[in-house]
Amino acid sequence: MELYSGYINKLVDELAALPGIGNKSAQRLAFHIIGMPQDKVNRLANVMMEAKANVRYCSQCFTLTDSDVCPICSKPGRNHRLIMVVENSRDLAAYEKTGKYDGVYHVLHGAISPMIGIGPADIKIKELLDRCKGDVEEVILATNSSLEGESTAMYISKLLKAAGIKVTKIASGVPVGGDLEYIDEVTLSRALDGRVEL
Amino acid sequence: MELYSGYINKLVDELAALPGIGNKSAQRLAFHIIGMPQDKVNRLANVMMEAKANVRYCSQCFTLTDSDVCPICSKPGRNHRLIMVVENSRDLAAYEKTGKYDGVYHVLHGAISPMIGIGPADIKIKELLDRCKGDVEEVILATNSSLEGESTAMYISKLLKAAGIKVTKIASGVPVGGDLEYIDEVTLSRALDGRVEL
Repeated sequence: MELYSGYINKLVDELAALPGIGNKSAQRLAFHIIGMPQDKVNRLANVMMEAKANVRYCSQCFTLTDSDVCPICSKPGRNHRLIMVVENSRDLAAYEKTGKYDGVYHVLHGAISPMIGIGPADIKIKELLDRCKGDVEEVILATNSSLEGESTAMYISKLLKAAGIKVTKIASGVPVGGDLEYIDEVTLSRALDGRVEL
Repeated sequence: MELYSGYINKLVDELAALPGIGNKSAQRLAFHIIGMPQDKVNRLANVMMEAKANVRYCSQCFTLTDSDVCPICSKPGRNHRLIMVVENSRDLAAYEKTGKYDGVYHVLHGAISPMIGIGPADIKIKELLDRCKGDVEEVILATNSSLEGESTAMYISKLLKAAGIKVTKIASGVPVGGDLEYIDEVTLSRALDGRVEL
């Protein structure tokens, strides 16, 4: 027998299909949504559909945006000869929040992962190479320090170096405020290898 | 400066306003939704609006349903002289899953909480009293064992007893599989008070 009404079950199923939302949270959310005023539910639903319909890739850096060129690429004063390569728009946002970077970005939309069938052609690597045919001084690799992120960085680095472009990689080491005893060995040995003279 | 496009920011804000979804999860969800095919996004949005528009209270037990009388109240074989009082439809679902209860329910939609201004008139207590004017044998109180749930149970119990109706309360005690050393003192002393002879 159906516990709730068909409408509630359908909503719970749809919500539970979203990443990071289990069945219990989906139920909680569904009941919350049903308890919201109709106009607020409509607004939430419309914002979803509008975002999906209007958001596309920036024609320069491939981040998600609603204009042809994203706010970062079109901002005066950004150094277009410095390109930071990130895996996705969230990583871009994380770096942008530091306020310490005045170059532009290149969003790959993923990392090379043969395990799940993602090859170099499935992410925006060709587009990066095309950009680098222009006037580029340095490409900073800021892919994640996972196996996939590292392999992607290696792959890109080889191609760009062959094209004579300066390639750097963001430092890996002990995070600020991190307690040494809780940090994994790989990070610790990288921090040691990357030590700098004071 | 806006990091993302206006559409993404709006979606993140709407999602972050839902319960249990922080800013980081809202971002993750927003990007996931933007990455979904348009027809799936539309389906999710429509299911939300439909559920909100079609779900109402069961005219008997006040649980959320899409018909005048919910599947439980309209199921043949349920004992309508036995009413279990719960705070919300999720609690009803939890008991219904046990498969051990053949009575019907009464959903209060909250608990009395003077701290946040919820009085007896704000939840479905009057409706419960009205139901109890009919042929009712026993009312089982299954509100949460929080301060609010307990006070609500006490309040209802006084009213029903005054009307000459048998009122019981689900047992509180040590949960099955619970390790004594991790259980709080209040639960332990309740379990002691409620001990049964073997």
